[in-house]
Amino acid sequence: MVQYVGVSNVVELVRSVGIETFLLGLVDYIEEDFRRWEEFEKSPRVASHSKAGVIELMPTSDGQHYGFKYVNGHPKNPSVGLQTVTAFGVLSDVATGYPCLVSEMTLMTGLRTAATSALAAKYLARKDARTMAIVGLGAQSEFQALAFRALLGIKSLRVYDIDPDAASKFRGNLAETDIEIIVTKTAEEAVSGADIITTVTADKRNATILSDNMVGGGVHINAVGGDCPGKTELQGDILRRADVFVEFPEQTRIEGEIQQMAPDFPVTELWQVIAGQATGRRSDTQITIFDSVGFATEDFSALRYLRDAVQGTSFYTELDLTTQPEDPRNLYGLFRQPAPAMQRSVA
Amino acid sequence: MVQYVGVSNVVELVRSVGIETFLLGLVDYIEEDFRRWEEFEKSPRVASHSKAGVIELMPTSDGQHYGFKYVNGHPKNPSVGLQTVTAFGVLSDVATGYPCLVSEMTLMTGLRTAATSALAAKYLARKDARTMAIVGLGAQSEFQALAFRALLGIKSLRVYDIDPDAASKFRGNLAETDIEIIVTKTAEEAVSGADIITTVTADKRNATILSDNMVGGGVHINAVGGDCPGKTELQGDILRRADVFVEFPEQTRIEGEIQQMAPDFPVTELWQVIAGQATGRRSDTQITIFDSVGFATEDFSALRYLRDAVQGTSFYTELDLTTQPEDPRNLYGLFRQPAPAMQRSVA
Repeated sequence: MVQYVGVSNVVELVRSVGIETFLLGLVDYIEEDFRRWEEFEKSPRVASHSKAGVIELMPTSDGQHYGFKYVNGHPKNPSVGLQTVTAFGVLSDVATGYPCLVSEMTLMTGLRTAATSALAAKYLARKDARTMAIVGLGAQSEFQALAFRALLGIKSLRVYDIDPDAASKFRGNLAETDIEIIVTKTAEEAVSGADIITTVTADKRNATILSDNMVGGGVHINAVGGDCPGKTELQGDILRRADVFVEFPEQTRIEGEIQQMAPDFPVTELWQVIAGQATGRRSDTQITIFDSVGFATEDFSALRYLRDAVQGTSFYTELDLTTQPEDPRNLYGLFRQPAPAMQRSVA
Repeated sequence: MVQYVGVSNVVELVRSVGIETFLLGLVDYIEEDFRRWEEFEKSPRVASHSKAGVIELMPTSDGQHYGFKYVNGHPKNPSVGLQTVTAFGVLSDVATGYPCLVSEMTLMTGLRTAATSALAAKYLARKDARTMAIVGLGAQSEFQALAFRALLGIKSLRVYDIDPDAASKFRGNLAETDIEIIVTKTAEEAVSGADIITTVTADKRNATILSDNMVGGGVHINAVGGDCPGKTELQGDILRRADVFVEFPEQTRIEGEIQQMAPDFPVTELWQVIAGQATGRRSDTQITIFDSVGFATEDFSALRYLRDAVQGTSFYTELDLTTQPEDPRNLYGLFRQPAPAMQRSVA
């Protein structure tokens, strides 16, 4: 039997432990896996493109477990009431090849993206950072806010979205927290005076959410929205002034903000900073950028965390996704056993 | 919600319609998809190798649906009571990227492999073929026997396995059918006088299940067991005397019997025969070989068939694998709704 964690299970699990506690646990797993980065089998996404969007498989393995995420990106989905991005994932035992966990990963992707952003900021933002700007108040924004509050104690937000309804939604969703939210009329106003700037807009285009003159010294930029070819948020000049940190350079050069730059544009791998092999922030005037695109190991960490988190709880069910004949060579025998016995044998 | 078809569902569905009727329906879907072969996006498997075995993802798309199969191959699994090969699959809508079906595919792989073999033999075996030899009586053997009975009316089998228990299992499993089974003491005895020879042994090695002197003119060889690097069943001389038909040459040259031959060894693509673009059998003395390795489109056909077959039946359940927030941009809102309402909204 394979453990199944659906959307309602993730919702109930996160509520039962509290979303910030859940995020902190998730950060620990992601950090642990970044630290042992070299143990992972890493490969580009396996993408199937169509006019409507893209469907991708993102596999990775640490030699003990194998995990993959299925994720789509369909920009026009919201016009028919569907989400742009949905995802699910599977974790397996490498020793047997048998899957052990199937999970929703739409919510988990939101959570792991925010957890990774906060983790990167722990290493890259100024230690005295207190105020964060968020530009773009879509599906990812609340997760970012809560992860930065949980890990870095950020309780002061300056936020902006071109759609005023998005700001209302954001404010409403975080109403019960102690986060102070200032909604601004422009992106420029939002980033003014912020120690950390999170850009997380949705439009698939080469946009200029941040222009060079909006970014002062010492700022950490958490660039989340620019995450596929043709979708960027930062003016190239900012990248040249800053030190840029990435997950997996081969992927980020195609999908991230640095798709605007030459193929040899210098970047530092985040895992090296976390593992103590590279320097993160060097001074209080340096501009740091985490050019986040999302990598397979983060989903692997999320699946691993989820698997451990649900053990001993009621937040999963079981699926008869694998066969269990008494004799492995007698697969056909499953069709011959009396129905009740067969059901017991696979249940 | 995503439809889920587990092992018990497949068992119940197949029983309810009868396995031969089920196989004939599956053959139709596979044949239809081979006929429109050029519409499919085809790519090699995405494999993750370890000392214990391999885990693979096999994606494909026809532009309307996207499907992939997860399948492992772990030769030592039977020693711990597990199967060498397990599998599951997912079918999605290309227009939205949303998954619509998750299914077990261990049983379905057994069924689709046999259906594909019988389909190939319909085009490649002599029309007057009446007797089939099966060498190797493992997990796949009964499916092969039943598919050939259903599609080609083969009711006379000559079978051999190095393990006498395997023959007893095989005979017992087919005891209620009208198939006449002669168990032989050697592979040579089994193939003697057979019109069709199915080789489907399990050992992962370059074996000689059929040597050149065992194969007479006019025979069709259904070579199923040689399906990964280092695993073959036929002596190379047989391949040189025969006309060899394959699924996807790029894959078969790595995984099939023809891995023994030069990279330019001539083969015919099965889809071209089915689509009327190439000739199958040309004479009653020609030796034909279907060098079967299993290709992603066959799994796609199986998923498509299964999806249609379960509609309006009780042979599936539903999984909350995708989120359904009222506002796609308010993903976080799923954590805020009262629990019962949330469960309704995702259930």
